Amino acid sequence: MPTLKESPADAQVRSHIYMVRGGFIRQLAAGIYNFLPLGWRVIHKIERIIREELDRAGAQEVLMPAVIPGELWQESGRWAKYGPELLRFKDRKGSEFCFGPTHEEVIVDMVRRDTKSYRELPVNLYQIQGKFRDELRPRAGLMRGREFIMKDAYSFDVSEQAAKVSYRQMYEAYERIFARCGLSFRVVEADTGAIGGDLSHEFQVLAPSGEDTLVACTSCDYAANVEQAELRTADNAGGGGGALAAVDTPNARTIAEVASFLRIEPSSLVKTLVYLADDKPVAVLVRGDAAVNEVKLKKQLGVTTLFLAREKQTEAATGAPVGFAGPVGLSIPIVADEDLRGLTGAVCGANENDKHYTGLDIERDVEVGTWSQLRLAGAGDRCVKCDGGVFEVLRGIEVGHVFYLSTVYSEPMGCTFLDEEGKTRAMEMGCYGIGVTRTAAAAIEQNSDDRGIVWPLSIAPYEVHVLSLQPKDDDVVAACDAIYDLLRARGVEVVYDDRQERTGAKFADADLIGVPLRIAVGKRALGDGEVELKWRRDADATRVGRDAVVDHVVGLVEAERARLGVK
Amino acid sequence: MPTLKESPADAQVRSHIYMVRGGFIRQLAAGIYNFLPLGWRVIHKIERIIREELDRAGAQEVLMPAVIPGELWQESGRWAKYGPELLRFKDRKGSEFCFGPTHEEVIVDMVRRDTKSYRELPVNLYQIQGKFRDELRPRAGLMRGREFIMKDAYSFDVSEQAAKVSYRQMYEAYERIFARCGLSFRVVEADTGAIGGDLSHEFQVLAPSGEDTLVACTSCDYAANVEQAELRTADNAGGGGGALAAVDTPNARTIAEVASFLRIEPSSLVKTLVYLADDKPVAVLVRGDAAVNEVKLKKQLGVTTLFLAREKQTEAATGAPVGFAGPVGLSIPIVADEDLRGLTGAVCGANENDKHYTGLDIERDVEVGTWSQLRLAGAGDRCVKCDGGVFEVLRGIEVGHVFYLSTVYSEPMGCTFLDEEGKTRAMEMGCYGIGVTRTAAAAIEQNSDDRGIVWPLSIAPYEVHVLSLQPKDDDVVAACDAIYDLLRARGVEVVYDDRQERTGAKFADADLIGVPLRIAVGKRALGDGEVELKWRRDADATRVGRDAVVDHVVGLVEAERARLGVK
Repeated sequence: MPTLKESPADAQVRSHIYMVRGGFIRQLAAGIYNFLPLGWRVIHKIERIIREELDRAGAQEVLMPAVIPGELWQESGRWAKYGPELLRFKDRKGSEFCFGPTHEEVIVDMVRRDTKSYRELPVNLYQIQGKFRDELRPRAGLMRGREFIMKDAYSFDVSEQAAKVSYRQMYEAYERIFARCGLSFRVVEADTGAIGGDLSHEFQVLAPSGEDTLVACTSCDYAANVEQAELRTADNAGGGGGALAAVDTPNARTIAEVASFLRIEPSSLVKTLVYLADDKPVAVLVRGDAAVNEVKLKKQLGVTTLFLAREKQTEAATGAPVGFAGPVGLSIPIVADEDLRGLTGAVCGANENDKHYTGLDIERDVEVGTWSQLRLAGAGDRCVKCDGGVFEVLRGIEVGHVFYLSTVYSEPMGCTFLDEEGKTRAMEMGCYGIGVTRTAAAAIEQNSDDRGIVWPLSIAPYEVHVLSLQPKDDDVVAACDAIYDLLRARGVEVVYDDRQERTGAKFADADLIGVPLRIAVGKRALGDGEVELKWRRDADATRVGRDAVVDHVVGLVEAERARLGVK
Repeated sequence: MPTLKESPADAQVRSHIYMVRGGFIRQLAAGIYNFLPLGWRVIHKIERIIREELDRAGAQEVLMPAVIPGELWQESGRWAKYGPELLRFKDRKGSEFCFGPTHEEVIVDMVRRDTKSYRELPVNLYQIQGKFRDELRPRAGLMRGREFIMKDAYSFDVSEQAAKVSYRQMYEAYERIFARCGLSFRVVEADTGAIGGDLSHEFQVLAPSGEDTLVACTSCDYAANVEQAELRTADNAGGGGGALAAVDTPNARTIAEVASFLRIEPSSLVKTLVYLADDKPVAVLVRGDAAVNEVKLKKQLGVTTLFLAREKQTEAATGAPVGFAGPVGLSIPIVADEDLRGLTGAVCGANENDKHYTGLDIERDVEVGTWSQLRLAGAGDRCVKCDGGVFEVLRGIEVGHVFYLSTVYSEPMGCTFLDEEGKTRAMEMGCYGIGVTRTAAAAIEQNSDDRGIVWPLSIAPYEVHVLSLQPKDDDVVAACDAIYDLLRARGVEVVYDDRQERTGAKFADADLIGVPLRIAVGKRALGDGEVELKWRRDADATRVGRDAVVDHVVGLVEAERARLGVK
C-alpha cells in the first residue's frame, strides 16, 4: 500500500488523485493502469455484487476472448464503421483481429451456433472482462481509460414483449447493484443514438464532477439525460401581438443586449441560429431563453453531420451580420421549436445590420417548414410526468447502460430461431453494460472530501482500519494485535497500520484511503483503558473501552453490511 | 448447456473433445475459445482455490494491464529476443505495445517505483489474467491455446536466502492448490533453461496423454523432468577387458543388430553419436542401452544450437558410414557419459565399413575430452535420493511452474532497495505460474473415461445432477422439483435436467458433463418410493428412499468437500 504525498501532474479529478495517492492504481501508459492490492480489492467487491445480482436475475456468466477475429466485425458491418478507437492488429499469419471494446458480434455468433429453438429461449449471458478502447484523449484516471473492466450482458428473446421483460429484469438488477454499492444514483432515459431501438436507460452516479448533465423531477421519479428529456410545450395565448415593425437596435447583438435595449424579457425574443446539416444551411428557431438540443435536432433532420454555421456562412444565408439574423423572409429551410407555436408580439432579428423586428407573429410572419421540440431542458421546467414537479439539473457519471437492441445485430448476423409454428425469426436482443472500473472512480467522486475517500462499506477495500499510534510501545502493540486478531477471527476485514511513521502521517493516510471505520490505539487513551473509534464519514471520534471495542465494532459493521446488503 | 453428439473435426485429446461436446467451450478462432456457462464455472472454481491458497501464503492480488508498452520490454531486452509468439501492435498514435504473454517487466516496473527500503520487503504479488501467446500451431483445445488464463505471481526479497523462503511458500501453496483441485500430480525438478537461476520445479498432472515425460521414484518422493533427472553413475569394475581387436560385423549397424550378431548385451556396446554443436562436430559417447539427454549435453557444451549430424556430416567426421562410427582415433572433440568411465571389454564402431572393435578399454583407448552425465533417465534406473527405489516413467501435463529468478530482471531494470546498511542492492525475485485454463483441461485428461468427464467435486461445474426421466409425469416432476429445491436450500450446487429428451440422451449427457453425483428420478423406482443415486466415478447406481435422498446426498457432498478442502 504505497501512499504518495504528491498528486500526479495530470490529475484533476478527485478519484484520479486519491486512487494514485492512496496506492490503489499506478499508470503504466496513457489510459492504462496497474491495480495495486488496495485498488484490486475494491474492483473485486464491485464484481462480486454484480455477479450476485445478475445470477439472481437469471443471467449466466461466460467469458469471451479479448482477441476477436475481424471477420465477425465485418459481418456486422462495424469493422468499417468503428473509428480508430478500435485497436486492430494482425496475428503472425496475417489474419485481422481486434481487441474487443464490446462483444455483440461474439455473443451473437455464440448464440446462433447453439440456440435453434424457441424452447431454448430466453438466454441472458454476461461476462466481466478487460476491454480496450483506444481513446484519443484518455483522462481522469479510471474515468476514461483505454484498458478498463466492463461487465457486459446480452439477452436473447423470442419477441419484443419478452425482450422487454428481460430488459426490465436487468434494469431492476442494476438498481440493486448500485444501491448495494452504496451509491446515490438516478436512472435516466437515454438517447438510443445511431443503433436504433426505442428503449434505453443510463444509470448515473450523482456527483458534481460528472460529465453528463441530467434533469430530474423534484417531486416524482422522472429523470433523463438533458438531451433526451421530454418537455411540456409552452401554451402561447396567441393573438393581439400587433404588426411587424422594424426597430433600430444599434450594436445590440446578443439576446441579453437586445432584451435590455428593448426592455423586454429574453423569453419574448426568437433566437435564429443557422446550422449546416449534412453541409446544407438550415435556420433553427428557439425562444430567447432556451438552448438548442442538438441531439434532438439531428434526429429530427435525419442527418449525419450537424454543425453551427460559422459567421460568414450565417451572413451568406441571412444577408445580415450575426446577431441580426431573423426568420422573416429567409430562403433556407426553417425548423422551429414547438414552444414558439402561437407566439405573437415577439422580437427577432431583421436580417439587416442594427435592426430587429417587433410585433412578430410567428405563424403569420414566418414560413416554418418543421415544428419540433428542439429546446434543451433546464432547471425549473415543469415535469411532464407529474403535476407540480419541476426539473432540477444534476451532474452525473454514467456507470451503467441498458439498451433494447431489437434485431439490429441478430438480423444481419442470422441469429435466428424456430418459433412454435416452425417459422424462422431473428432473436430480439438487449445489451447491458456496467463500467466496473468507472464505478469505483464514480464512487470516489461522490464519496470523498478534501482529505481523501469516504468509501461505502460494501465496496471499501477493508471495513476497519486499525492504527497503532505508538508502534514501539508494547502496550499499544499488544492492544492493536489483539483487536486486529479478534476482529479478523469474527470475519471483519481489517487493515492494520503498524508502520513506524509519524502519527500525523498515519491519520492522513487513513483519511486518504478511506476505510469506513477507524480504530486508533494510542498510549494516552489506553492508559484510561480506552481506544478511539471514528467513522470516516463523521467529523468526530468517540472513545470506547478497549475490552468492548471488538464487540461494538462487529455490531457496527454488521449493521452497515445489512443496510447495504453485503452477503 | 448445449451438448453435441459430434466431436470437433480437429480434436484428438479427451479434454478438447469433451469440453466442446459437453458445452464447456466453443472455438472462436484457432486457439481462441469462448467459455460457456458450464466451462466458466469450472474456471471460477479453480481460480477461487488459487486465491484462497495464495492469500493464505501471504501473497496479494493485483491486476496488470493486458496491453503493455513495448518500451518496458526493450528495457529488459526481451523485445528483441521474444519471437513471433509475442503479439505486437501499434496504438492510434503509433506507439508500440504488446499483448502480455507474461508480466515480469510490468511487475518489476511496478515494484521499483514504490518499493525503496528493505523494510518494505518481502513483497509477493499475483494476478489472474487472460494472456496471449501467438502459437504457431495452437492445438488440443485449452491445452495449448493462444488466449488463455494464467495465474502469475512474483516475489521480491532482500536476499537469496529470503527469496528461497518465498519460493518454498509458493511451492507449498501450489501443492495445496492442486491437491484441493482433486488432481494426482508430481512436483518435478525442472530445467532452469536460458533464464538462469538454479532452482525450478514443475507441477505435473499425471495423465497418459501428457506431453511431458517424467521419472519418479517408486519408493521415495523424488521426481524430475526426464531431462533434468539426477542419476546414479554405473560402477564399472574396470580391468580385465583384453586387447582392442577389429572384428567383422557385416551389415550390423544398429545397437540391436551388433549385439545380436556378437551375442552380447546392448549395455556392452559404446554408442558414438556425432552432433553439430554451434555448427562444430563433436562425438558423444553413451552406453548402447542409453539415450543422450540433449538438454544436459547442450548445457555441458555451453552452446546455443545443437543438432544430431546428418549422415554425410557423420561420415565426414568419422570416415565411416553411420553405424560403424567409433571413438578410437577420432580427431573431433569427444564427450563421454560418466557411465562409461572404467568400462572395459566393450564393443564400438571401428570407423570402417562392416567393422567393430571388441575389447575396448575406454580410458585406455579413447581420448575423452569431457566426462559428464549425458544419458537420459529411464524406467528401472536406481533412484539417487533413496536406497532401493527405482524410477518409473510417467507422462505429465505441466500446470504449474515455480522459478527462482535471482536478479535476472531486477538487475537490468534497476529494481533495487536500500539494505540495512544503506547500500543499494537488486531485489531477489521468484516467479510462479499456474495455467488456469490448462488445469481444467489436465483435470479432464486425468479424470475421464470413454463416456465423458469425471470431475473432482471441488472443480466440478455442479456437485449434483438431478435427472428427470419422465419430464411429463407429474409425480416425477414433483419429486425432482422438491429434491432440487431442498438441495439448493442446503447449499448444494445442483443442475437439473428437465428437458424433454430421451432417457438415453439424458444419461449420456450426464456422463459427458461429468457432475460427480447423479440423482435419477424415474417413474418405476418412484413407485417404490425410491430414486437412483450414482457417483459418476462408480460403475453402479444404488437406490435410496426419496424422502431420505436429500439428507443422504448432503452428507456425501459434505464428506467429499471436506476431503478436498472445499471452503
